Amino acid sequence: MKLEQLIAEYRQKPSQGRIFILSGPSGAGKTLLSRKILTLFPDMLLSVSYTTRKQRPQEVDGRDYFFLTPEDFQRKIDQGDFLEWAIVHGQKYGTCRKWVTEKLNQGHDVILEIDVQGAEQVQRQNLPACSIFVAPPSMEILLRRLKGRKNEAEMDIAKRLKNAEAEIQKAPDYQYLIINDVLSEAVEQLASIIRAQRCRL
Amino acid sequence: MKLEQLIAEYRQKPSQGRIFILSGPSGAGKTLLSRKILTLFPDMLLSVSYTTRKQRPQEVDGRDYFFLTPEDFQRKIDQGDFLEWAIVHGQKYGTCRKWVTEKLNQGHDVILEIDVQGAEQVQRQNLPACSIFVAPPSMEILLRRLKGRKNEAEMDIAKRLKNAEAEIQKAPDYQYLIINDVLSEAVEQLASIIRAQRCRL
Repeated sequence: MKLEQLIAEYRQKPSQGRIFILSGPSGAGKTLLSRKILTLFPDMLLSVSYTTRKQRPQEVDGRDYFFLTPEDFQRKIDQGDFLEWAIVHGQKYGTCRKWVTEKLNQGHDVILEIDVQGAEQVQRQNLPACSIFVAPPSMEILLRRLKGRKNEAEMDIAKRLKNAEAEIQKAPDYQYLIINDVLSEAVEQLASIIRAQRCRL
Repeated sequence: MKLEQLIAEYRQKPSQGRIFILSGPSGAGKTLLSRKILTLFPDMLLSVSYTTRKQRPQEVDGRDYFFLTPEDFQRKIDQGDFLEWAIVHGQKYGTCRKWVTEKLNQGHDVILEIDVQGAEQVQRQNLPACSIFVAPPSMEILLRRLKGRKNEAEMDIAKRLKNAEAEIQKAPDYQYLIINDVLSEAVEQLASIIRAQRCRL
């Protein structure tokens, strides 16, 4: 292989985007983290999930989630529209296969904020995916963050904490671990993982 | 696995350092790149190679290389002192196995600036090693950089260019590729690879 050929093949690589899977318990800071990353990497895109969960007051349909009825969600499952889907806290969440593959083919890197079950499904498919688990620095801090959220009923918090413990069991299956203690450090770590991935042969 | 256990195991991981292999043709900028990295990561160490090559005027024995006679080098080969060794441009170069394993066990990450033959030897051994190929942006620029060096005879340049072509053949065997066009960008890429590696599970 000649140098010119090596460089040409390498530089052409971005014509196919990569998936960055972000998982971790509610309150670990995935959403804030990915928002910061989108400002650092303007060419990256965040996939908007479909869900049967009830829309919260501050949420916008199509921006935070696509809100579907259970029937419409089921129809999309049956049609194979989801790259992955899972039941989390009793509600269904899914990622649009068509949107993701389109964006990857256009050369965009895509962030998927999905749970551990969804992450497993994506990694079983033959896609260029890199998996990152975002963990809180301690259960106490996780609890404090969840309590600090508006619109979060006491029952929801108990459910989320229990689910957090189950999700953390799966952390060792991921390629990378970010302990989100200081946000700026977590952003720097995630940005480094993305930049490193772009240097991969 | 509990969160506290996950974090404890992860934070304890740095007790074993990692090897970062930097290869690439003479003139690609490996030395300048690793010098910059050492200032960014004060806990990282650069392995000083042993060589039978003649000491150049500005070089310091023990800092740039350990300069050995061919006989002393051969003795070290026979004793199994080298983690890797190779013949490059007709001269022998080797890495001290004892020094590297000691530093890794102390928790230091270690940079090895070694050629493609040496990199293959290190990767065959069961060590936590990450391999990075540093390439010049073009053969013209490589030639210009080599010509800009003092103490570089015309014959040496021809030999190094020919060797560069052979080394580039091996680039696809590496995990990462850095095209060293603008130094600050190459430093940022290498720093990202190191930071990402430290988040690996």
